[in-house]
Parts: sequence; structure tokens; C-alpha cells
Amino acid sequence: MGKSQRVAILGAGSWGTALALVLADNGHDVRLWTHNKVQADVINETHRNERYLPNVELSSSIKGFYQLDKAIENTEIIVFAVPTKAMREVAEQVNKVCHGSKTIVHVSKGIEPDTHLRISEIIKQSLSETILKDLVVLSGPSHAEEVVLRHPTTVTAASDQIQAAEMVQDLFMNQHFRVYTNLDVVGVEIGGALKNIIALAAGITDGLGYGDNAKAALITRGLAEMARLGTTLGANPLTFSGLTGIGDLIVTCTSVHSRNWRAGNLLGKGKKLDEVLESMGMVVEGVRTTKAAFQLAQKLDVSMPITEALFHVLFNDVSPKEAVDQLMSRVKTNEMEDLVNILGEHHQTESK
Amino acid sequence: MGKSQRVAILGAGSWGTALALVLADNGHDVRLWTHNKVQADVINETHRNERYLPNVELSSSIKGFYQLDKAIENTEIIVFAVPTKAMREVAEQVNKVCHGSKTIVHVSKGIEPDTHLRISEIIKQSLSETILKDLVVLSGPSHAEEVVLRHPTTVTAASDQIQAAEMVQDLFMNQHFRVYTNLDVVGVEIGGALKNIIALAAGITDGLGYGDNAKAALITRGLAEMARLGTTLGANPLTFSGLTGIGDLIVTCTSVHSRNWRAGNLLGKGKKLDEVLESMGMVVEGVRTTKAAFQLAQKLDVSMPITEALFHVLFNDVSPKEAVDQLMSRVKTNEMEDLVNILGEHHQTESK
Repeated sequence: MGKSQRVAILGAGSWGTALALVLADNGHDVRLWTHNKVQADVINETHRNERYLPNVELSSSIKGFYQLDKAIENTEIIVFAVPTKAMREVAEQVNKVCHGSKTIVHVSKGIEPDTHLRISEIIKQSLSETILKDLVVLSGPSHAEEVVLRHPTTVTAASDQIQAAEMVQDLFMNQHFRVYTNLDVVGVEIGGALKNIIALAAGITDGLGYGDNAKAALITRGLAEMARLGTTLGANPLTFSGLTGIGDLIVTCTSVHSRNWRAGNLLGKGKKLDEVLESMGMVVEGVRTTKAAFQLAQKLDVSMPITEALFHVLFNDVSPKEAVDQLMSRVKTNEMEDLVNILGEHHQTESK
Repeated sequence: MGKSQRVAILGAGSWGTALALVLADNGHDVRLWTHNKVQADVINETHRNERYLPNVELSSSIKGFYQLDKAIENTEIIVFAVPTKAMREVAEQVNKVCHGSKTIVHVSKGIEPDTHLRISEIIKQSLSETILKDLVVLSGPSHAEEVVLRHPTTVTAASDQIQAAEMVQDLFMNQHFRVYTNLDVVGVEIGGALKNIIALAAGITDGLGYGDNAKAALITRGLAEMARLGTTLGANPLTFSGLTGIGDLIVTCTSVHSRNWRAGNLLGKGKKLDEVLESMGMVVEGVRTTKAAFQLAQKLDVSMPITEALFHVLFNDVSPKEAVDQLMSRVKTNEMEDLVNILGEHHQTESK
């Protein structure tokens, strides 16, 4: 364990709160910011975050803040843990009130519709160069509900600056929370974003009662289309075989803790999107990401049949059953052709 | 759907029986062989296989046989659906009583301990060249319990003779049961065999109560070590990203239908191996496969930490908790190094 540092975590949802707990376990001074004054006060008075992580006792070294300038004052590190939708606004606010140069970490999973920007690109656009010392994305198969129980969890810290990734690795690493490093920011961010699309689709097949064979086929084909878009955007295809690819995909498609799977499951059972989102009470990132990825696939001419089918279910009133049945009966007889298109071509390019 | 063919399925366990149903649905003449006369009689009288697939009505075009020579007489195709342990003996019996040249299909998943042979290698050793016209392996994420309900299922038919793979594709393909082809027999067989090892380990982590984050990390690392051994044996690394790799791995590690996961789960909860195997009542292929893969990894000097840990749990009385905790805390900080070792090197070799 390294020396104690001052860290601001922006966003007191379940994941921001769980990471605050990891950092407190590691002896760091943690400020947990939320725009909601009542929530900040409750955290300070009860050391709990009942709405997002019920029954979890927070260390008293985690302080709640609702004023952004106070939360980030004199910190060395700022962790963005807000939903993709709020990312740009919060980053622009930080830009206004931040003094000095900071290591910026983000732990969000999405792509911005219309601009098609990844989270790190939104942050780079929003923060001045004098503030943004380094930028690291922390991602992987990690349900907050299990992290707070100190169950074994393994994630990846990715940055194009290896020293920054290693600094963040040291910050979070402990006996229960293992951190790997990776230089492929694009692959890690795209994997994290797109797995929510496949989880929605997997929830739909489960909601339709189609079973584990169908879901396994869907996840396999889903990983292929994630890698297809990712490599087109410059990701290393190997990243999709790692923790932030297949690892996060599996946990999101098969765990009861996954919001995206749960939302898909309700859609498969016949609920309408509006009802589903209302009943969740938390952000379902996959919905917006489906729109962004669908647009990107069209723009870049990348084949993403699962994303496309889901887009029409979510936004064009196609029935889930019709969409899944059509996906399952697609004529494609040689699976290797498809896989070679993803990994083979990329490697040929690299060896030029 | 092609013309009606005569097919003998050897082995009336759950998978052999489910495949008999698929072939009957496709209009073929199916003989289901079991060495147990009573079981054959019951199939013919009740059109059920209560022990392995309760509550499933079998088509009357599926005939039970207990005499091997009668079962295979005048068939064009023989499907081996017996456990790995019985494969050599049954193949040698077929060699004695078989007349004429047949397409041989096998659907079993394992590696023979001590000889380290794959199933197709055992069959080639046991059958004369005059009998063995073609050899095809059918594998993928496919629980029998779901196939008999006609839930959507997707599998791979692999052969080094593409025409043979396509013939088997035509034989089994229908609206619910989708068949892809692949030329990589080694990759398909190794993926099918080794995923049972990872499923045992995943069951153990679940039995220990470690949660979905830990299991996702284990499956990710498991896929990496499957691919590492597979490529050393000559498999195409891409096969491990397909249905018989990641697809089958996911379904086996996360489905309630998986025997290997169930056996691991009981081990994680503190039961002894003998008790577990006795309580299962069905073959748990992963136990023998762990031994075979451990031996192979030692012989070929391939790093397989999960297989090694599981070997010591199964055969050397190491406690599951100790083994898993050690796996989880392994010092390795850059995940890409590891992945490059698998996929990168192979591609370099190919481009020479």
C-alpha cells in the first residue's frame, strides 16, 4: 500500500460509493461528491448510502460533499463516477472550479449519442490542459454489491501513459480488489460500453424463456460484434478477450446484479421501454449506448446485427420475439469466416 | 431438409437422446443404442428415457437397441455419444461388428488421461480405415434439457474434410438447432474438453460464496489458458472466441444444467470428491479431463494455473479455498502480456 492520498469521487451512485470504500480500506482520504445536499448530509451523519447500497456501512474517512469546488480542493486525484449522460456537464463544472493539475480517472461505461465520443474523449474536450495531468479508465467485471462485501474482484486500469495506469493500480489495489494495467484505452472503453447492449439483448432472450443455449450463442456473437466495432475504432482485438471484454460481458449478461440484463428481461416479458426505465430507478446505460453504437455502425459500415436488432426493439417498436427469432435464424454457415474478419485482418494490418 | 438417412446414436444418455430427437424431427431413421437391454426396451415401449431426460416424449421413429451390430446395420452414419471413458471400448466393439464405410460423428468432450489423446484420435486408433469414411465432431453450447424443448441452440460441426462437416450440418440443422461448420478439429475438441475444467473451478468459487466478479475473472483467465494449451497443440486461436470456446464455456460455467459446475459447487461447499461423484449419478467429464490436461501442461511446459490448482484440489487434498485464494492473488499486473502470448505469437508464426 502506497502513501495516503486525497481523492474526490464525483457521483455517489452504487459504483462511486463502492470505490470510495475500496479507497478508504486502502487508507486514503476520500471525498464523495453528489449534487444532492441531502444525500451528502446523510452520508456524513449515518455513514450509509441507503438508496444505492443498502445495508453497507461506510468508513468515517469517507466524507460526503455537495459543493463541487470544496470536494476537489487540494485533491491529487478526481474519479468521475457519474452516468454517461451527466459526464459532459460535470466535467465542464470541474473545469470551472478546479485549480492545479490532477490525475483524472473515470469509471463510466457508455458512448455519447450523436457525437459518438467515448468518455475519455468527452473529458478531454471538457477539461483544460492545465487541469488534465493524466487520464485513466478503470473498468472490468465488478458489481458494486460484491465489491463492498470484499469479494474477490479483478479490474483493469487503462491509460496511454503507463505510469498513470500504474499509479491508479497502486491506489486501488488490495487483497480483494486486483488491478491489472493496459495501454488500450479505446478497447477498454468500447468493451465496457458495448457489453451493456449485449446484456440488454441477453435479458430479452431470458425474458422470452429461450434458455442458456440461446444466451451463450448470443453472447458469443455479441463479443464478435463488439470486437468488430472496437477494432475499426483502433482498439487492440486482444483487449476483447480480457477482463474488460469477455470478463465484463459475462458478468453483465449472467448476474442478477446487472441492471441492463434486468431491463432487457422486463422487455422480453412484454413490458414497454418507458415502464421498464421508470421501474428501474437507476440509469440503464445500454439504452443510450445502443443508439450511439447503432449510429456508429451505420457511419463506419460495420456489421452489428445484435445492436441493430436491439435498436429497432427499443426505438422502433419491433417486438422482442420477432427481433430475436430473426437474429437466431440468420444464415451464416462458417463461423470462422466471421472471426477471421475480426482478428485475422487486424493482425495482417499490424504485421505490415 | 435433406433426404431421410439411417443414423445410429451410440449412448442413450441425455445428450445422445436429445440428438436422437433432433434427427427424428428432421425425418431421419434413428437407432438409439445402449448396452442396457432394459433401457432399450423401455425406450421402445414407453418412448421415454426417464433416467436422463424425464418428462420428454420421444418420437416413435426413435428405436432403442441393445445389440450393437443390429443398431449399426445398414446405417450411413454413426454418432458416438458415450462418455470419454467408454469411447475406446465402444469404438473397438464397433470395429468388430461394422460392415461398410460410414461417416462417424462424435459429440463427447474430454481428453484421455495418460495417452493425452483427443476423442477423434481415439476413434481413429480404434476403427479400421475401411470403416472410417469421414470423422466429424459436433460441439457447442447445448444443454440437452433445452434442446428437447426446441429452444434455440447453436453448435459447430468440425472436420478436416469440409464436405463431411457440411453433410453433418445438413443432417442436424433445423429451425431450432443451428449448425455452423469449422475446419479446426483440434480447437473444437480442446475447447469442449477444457471448458469442463473451468466449469468445475467456477462451481468451486460459487460454492465458496465468492460471487460473480470472481467468477468472471476466473472464466476470463480460464479461456486464456484453454487457448494457450490449444494453440500449442495446433488449434487456431480464433476457435476459442467462437461457439465451442467462449460460447460453451459460458453456458457450462453459468447454467444450472451444468454437471461440472454442480460438482464444483458441491466441492466448494466442503463435500469430498467421492461423495460428489456418487451424488451426481452422471459422468462428470471435467474430473478426468483435469488429470489429462494437467499431465499435458507439464509435458508441453504450458502455464495452466487454474487446471493445476484444480488438480491439487481433486487429487492431492488441497482445500478449495486455499487453491482459489492463491489463484486470485497471483501477481500479474499487465493483462495484455498474457494475451499477446496466446494470440500474438500464433499470428506471428502464421505470417512467417
